[in-house]
Amino acid sequence: MRIGIIGGGAVGLLTAAYFSKNHDVTIYTRRHEQAEQLCTYGLTVMYGNERTTYRVHAEPFVRAIEEDVLFIAVKQYDVTHILNTRIHMLQANAIMFLQNGMGHVLHLPHMPHNDIALAVVEHGALKIDDTTVSHTGVGRTKWSVWRGEKETFSFLSVTDARFPFQYVEDWKTMLIEKLMVNVCINPLTALLGVPNGMLVTHAPYRQAMEQLFHEVASIFELEQQERIWQHVETVCQQTAVNRSSMLRDIEAGRRTELDAILGYVIERANERHIPAPISTFLYALVKGKELEGEKEK
Amino acid sequence: MRIGIIGGGAVGLLTAAYFSKNHDVTIYTRRHEQAEQLCTYGLTVMYGNERTTYRVHAEPFVRAIEEDVLFIAVKQYDVTHILNTRIHMLQANAIMFLQNGMGHVLHLPHMPHNDIALAVVEHGALKIDDTTVSHTGVGRTKWSVWRGEKETFSFLSVTDARFPFQYVEDWKTMLIEKLMVNVCINPLTALLGVPNGMLVTHAPYRQAMEQLFHEVASIFELEQQERIWQHVETVCQQTAVNRSSMLRDIEAGRRTELDAILGYVIERANERHIPAPISTFLYALVKGKELEGEKEK
Repeated sequence: MRIGIIGGGAVGLLTAAYFSKNHDVTIYTRRHEQAEQLCTYGLTVMYGNERTTYRVHAEPFVRAIEEDVLFIAVKQYDVTHILNTRIHMLQANAIMFLQNGMGHVLHLPHMPHNDIALAVVEHGALKIDDTTVSHTGVGRTKWSVWRGEKETFSFLSVTDARFPFQYVEDWKTMLIEKLMVNVCINPLTALLGVPNGMLVTHAPYRQAMEQLFHEVASIFELEQQERIWQHVETVCQQTAVNRSSMLRDIEAGRRTELDAILGYVIERANERHIPAPISTFLYALVKGKELEGEKEK
Repeated sequence: MRIGIIGGGAVGLLTAAYFSKNHDVTIYTRRHEQAEQLCTYGLTVMYGNERTTYRVHAEPFVRAIEEDVLFIAVKQYDVTHILNTRIHMLQANAIMFLQNGMGHVLHLPHMPHNDIALAVVEHGALKIDDTTVSHTGVGRTKWSVWRGEKETFSFLSVTDARFPFQYVEDWKTMLIEKLMVNVCINPLTALLGVPNGMLVTHAPYRQAMEQLFHEVASIFELEQQERIWQHVETVCQQTAVNRSSMLRDIEAGRRTELDAILGYVIERANERHIPAPISTFLYALVKGKELEGEKEK
C-alpha cells in the first residue's frame, strides 16, 4: 500500500519506520534538508540497544500528494494551517490524524475525503536528529473512524508487535481522555520543571493537578471522571522518569503545544461562558515561560 | 530608651542598627551563637560602599524580657508561636509588630499590653551573616496604633534619615496593602524564578498577577482596587532587579512565608465560603517547591 506521512517529527518518523516494513512509505517534511537526509541515509529507529535503518522516500511538502492513505503527523498548530490552506493538496482515499489536541476536529466537516480516522499515539518517542527517532516506550495507537468505512484502515491490524493499533468506537471519548492527560501533565511539568512522576508522588503537586483536572472535567461535562482521573495517574506512574514534551520544548526554547492543549480548553470554556480561572492562570504562566525562552534565542 | 528587638533576621538587625545610634538596644535571638557573635563583633550595616558597626547587647530569647519598647521582628510563622506560648515573657509597656502577614492580628485581643502598634517595613534588607545586614534599598516603615496611645511611640519621629517612620491612621488598610503586595509578588516570583520586575514587564506574567490580584481583592472586599493595583505595579518597578524573599528562601531550600501570605488569604476565603481557586492552586505549587527544596537538604 502507498502510505504518505506528513511530518518529520518524532511521531511521524516512528510511524513511517514501522510501516516501512510492509508498505511503500513517503515522508513529507517541512524542510528540504530533512527530506534529502532521509533519502540519503534512510530512517533509523533506536530501541534499547537496537538500531534499525529503513530505506524510505522523502520529499518536502510543497505540492499535491497522491497516496492510498495519508497520516497527518504534524503538531496541532501546523495542522490548522494545513487544513486552512492546503486541503486540496491532500489527494488520498483515506486520511488519519495523529494529533494530541482536538482543534483539528472542528475542521473535519469541511474536508472532501470519504474516509477520515482519528488516532492518539501512546508511545514514548524522541526525535534524535533528522533521520533518527528513539522509541523510548512501547504503547499503542488508539484509533477511531470519524467518517467513512472502518475497513479502509484494515491494514492497521497487521503491524509490528512494537507498534500496535487498537480500534475504539467512540472517537470523542478517546480524544478527550488524551486531552485530559495532556492538560494535566504537560503544562504543570513544563512550569515546574519536574518529570511526570512528581505530579503523583509529591502531594502538593498532585493536589494542584487534581484541582486543574476537576476544572477542565467540568468544562467538558466529563462522564466517568473517577476512571479518567485514575488513567491520568497511571500515565504519570508509567512515565514517571520522563520529561514531558512540553517541558522539553520549554527547556529548548521551542514553541510548545500549549495553545492546542490548554488554549483549546479555555476557548471551549469561553464559548460556553464557563469560568476557567485555573486553566487561564496556568496558561499565562506557561506562555510566559515559552516567550521567555524564545526571547533568549 | 531601652529598646528590645526580638528576631535576628534582616528586619530585626536593620531596626536594631538604626536605633542603636540613640537608644540602648538589646537583640533577642533564637540561637545562642548569634547572640554571642553580636556581643563580640557588634552589628554591621552595609549601605553602598559604607560599613558601619554598632555595639549592641544581644542574648537568646529564653527568659522574660523587660524593656520600655519591644519590637517583634520574627517571621510570621514564629510570631504565632511566641504569642501562643510566651506572651508572659514580653514585659514591656509598648509593643510594635513588624510582620509581613496579618495572622498575628487575630492574637492581639488576648495580649495584656496597653500600647500595641503594627508596622510594615518597606526597606530592602538582606542578612549577610549573623552580625551583618545589607541595607539594599531605603524605604520607610509605615506604622499605626492598634490599641493605646500614639504618643508612646513618639520617639519614632527622631530617627536616622535612612530609616524613617511614617504614621498612618488605618492599620487595616496598611496591612492589607502590604499583604496584597506580598501576595502578588512573592509566590509568583518564587514559582517562576524571576526577579520582581518581570511580573510587570513580561505580559503573560502580568496577566497572571492581575488575575491573582482580583481574586484576592474580592476575598477581602477591597476598596480602591485600582489604586492598590497601581501600588503593586510600582513596587515591582522600583524593585525590578530584586529577587523576592520567598524566591530566595526557595532557592536556599528554606521555609517560606507562604502560609502567612497565601495561606492566610485561603483561610479567610474558607471562613467566608468564597471560592479561591487561583490562590489555592498557586499555594499548592509553591508549597510543592518549598518541600522539594527541604527534601534535598
